[in-house]
Amino acid sequence: MRGVVLHAPGDVRVEEREDPRIVEPTDAVIRLSAACVCGSDLWPYRGIDKVEGPSPMGHEYVGVVEEVGADVRTVRPGQFVVGSFFASDNTCEICRAGYQSSCVHRVGMGGLGSQAEFLRVPLADGTLVATPEIPPDDLVPGLLTASDVLGTGWFAAVAAHAGPGKTVAVVGDGAVGLLGVLSARQLGAERIIAMSRHEPRQKLALEYGATDIVTERGDEGVARIRDLTDGLGAHSAIEAVGTQESMMQAIRATRPGGHVGYVGVTHDVELPGMELFFSHVHLHGGPAPVRRFLPELIDLVLRREIDPGRVFDLDLPLDRAAEAYRAMDERRSIKALLRP
Amino acid sequence: MRGVVLHAPGDVRVEEREDPRIVEPTDAVIRLSAACVCGSDLWPYRGIDKVEGPSPMGHEYVGVVEEVGADVRTVRPGQFVVGSFFASDNTCEICRAGYQSSCVHRVGMGGLGSQAEFLRVPLADGTLVATPEIPPDDLVPGLLTASDVLGTGWFAAVAAHAGPGKTVAVVGDGAVGLLGVLSARQLGAERIIAMSRHEPRQKLALEYGATDIVTERGDEGVARIRDLTDGLGAHSAIEAVGTQESMMQAIRATRPGGHVGYVGVTHDVELPGMELFFSHVHLHGGPAPVRRFLPELIDLVLRREIDPGRVFDLDLPLDRAAEAYRAMDERRSIKALLRP
Repeated sequence: MRGVVLHAPGDVRVEEREDPRIVEPTDAVIRLSAACVCGSDLWPYRGIDKVEGPSPMGHEYVGVVEEVGADVRTVRPGQFVVGSFFASDNTCEICRAGYQSSCVHRVGMGGLGSQAEFLRVPLADGTLVATPEIPPDDLVPGLLTASDVLGTGWFAAVAAHAGPGKTVAVVGDGAVGLLGVLSARQLGAERIIAMSRHEPRQKLALEYGATDIVTERGDEGVARIRDLTDGLGAHSAIEAVGTQESMMQAIRATRPGGHVGYVGVTHDVELPGMELFFSHVHLHGGPAPVRRFLPELIDLVLRREIDPGRVFDLDLPLDRAAEAYRAMDERRSIKALLRP
Repeated sequence: MRGVVLHAPGDVRVEEREDPRIVEPTDAVIRLSAACVCGSDLWPYRGIDKVEGPSPMGHEYVGVVEEVGADVRTVRPGQFVVGSFFASDNTCEICRAGYQSSCVHRVGMGGLGSQAEFLRVPLADGTLVATPEIPPDDLVPGLLTASDVLGTGWFAAVAAHAGPGKTVAVVGDGAVGLLGVLSARQLGAERIIAMSRHEPRQKLALEYGATDIVTERGDEGVARIRDLTDGLGAHSAIEAVGTQESMMQAIRATRPGGHVGYVGVTHDVELPGMELFFSHVHLHGGPAPVRRFLPELIDLVLRREIDPGRVFDLDLPLDRAAEAYRAMDERRSIKALLRP
């Protein structure tokens, strides 16, 4: 089959890979309907995460089940499925507490590579959620977002305790930040302050429910948030970047007793203990347990109550994956869809 | 009046200080029934926090109201009162959310110095809670703990989501850690693992409700907690030290999705972002909003349902404050009571 392989920083190729097959009786193999490029794929693409030899890429996926292992009970060939970027058994104590991305048997889907024609999904019963029927084509991008980027924005909003009466600051205007705005709105937040200096992203943020735009960053951005909140800071902040600056911006923009939900994969971040102590914020985040939210998110997309697929502003055939990476790296594209 | 003054690291003196008087119409002046030495007083005593000239010491207090300012409504002369180590208006939005120690008008009591005969308490209406009558002498130490050390242990247990069905690890066997054990028990925790290698403290931890004692520290301590929790880690951890080692021990001892309540005043702590991200814990702490809990804690002490005053294993007249500091510094005493 054809699949995306990263050979070195900046060197993305679409090439022949071995067809995936059932290895464990709990596996499924799916034929991908769509895949996409994640902000976190840019870390190795930019050489910030080390690239150890040729690596299959991609961990977001929707598709149709081709084949299942002997022990798979909840999905069957022919069904359209959405899965999380971490495979999970969904039965262990950690999964039952809602943290499937820290499942004791978790498998990162990145190593399997969903930017391809087919994908092996371990622990299929615990990982995949089937839609009631094959969805219309125009909903495929939205369903694909549930696999990671929407699930991640949603988790951030939940971790930030976004809800009625709350003012939520969103740090980061990538696809996760934008879907954090959508999630905060959906969860009932009263006021949503998107921090963005890119006009097309500001526009989408406003359409997704942002009530205010702050273009300043760092200390100035924090000062603007305080101006907008009687000097107290936001009740909630969503952090969707993962740098030292963005983390400190989120913490400092939040009032004492408020909640910071952080989902940007942290790189070279060191949180100063004394400042965190006196900030009095609640801090929670990490790899989003997307599986917890999948049934609800799939339902919202199928009922057309939300339209998260609009974050895809580039739609390319899989063979042009290198263009997709380049456009996202240069911030010309918010998020790129790949069609196998 | 007589009061404790720190002149330089290790140099604690009891000397004549000016009598406090009403400065603002919202002030009260109280005659102290008892004061005590806090673990945090040892930071400047040890020279870890800088000592800028002679400093009055102490921020924990119970006493009888001597005089109130013209605007004070809720306490009156002759009443026995317990107050928080941060004065707060208890009416601002931050206070109403339960974070009185970050009140927009907060005043740290440390600068006023409660290790003395009298104390000025700013924002008396928002800071002090009166008991229904003058309490019996034997309950004074317990009521004094509510002012900080019990309130802090309680906040840590609340922040750690200690409760029914939970396993709680307690890092730190000082008075706060021990009262964290008591708090976790009171909040209904099923299993409480006290990390301590000091026999008298282990004994008190067990009497306060600890079910297990772990003597190992650092990575070995974490491994022991995992052994005791099916390899998953505790649901909750209380951090009551404030060092890099103790913070990491608390985070690593907690399972994904669990809660770390940290109340040790952090010194030279830098939390590694990537490890925190993948730990999946909730992190919350800071200076305890004792005022939130005072009514409940006072009530528990007066009804003799808890006996937090047992953390005082040294009871000295105020004039012997230097001995009290020395004993705590050398870990010969858990906590020292001072009688003016």
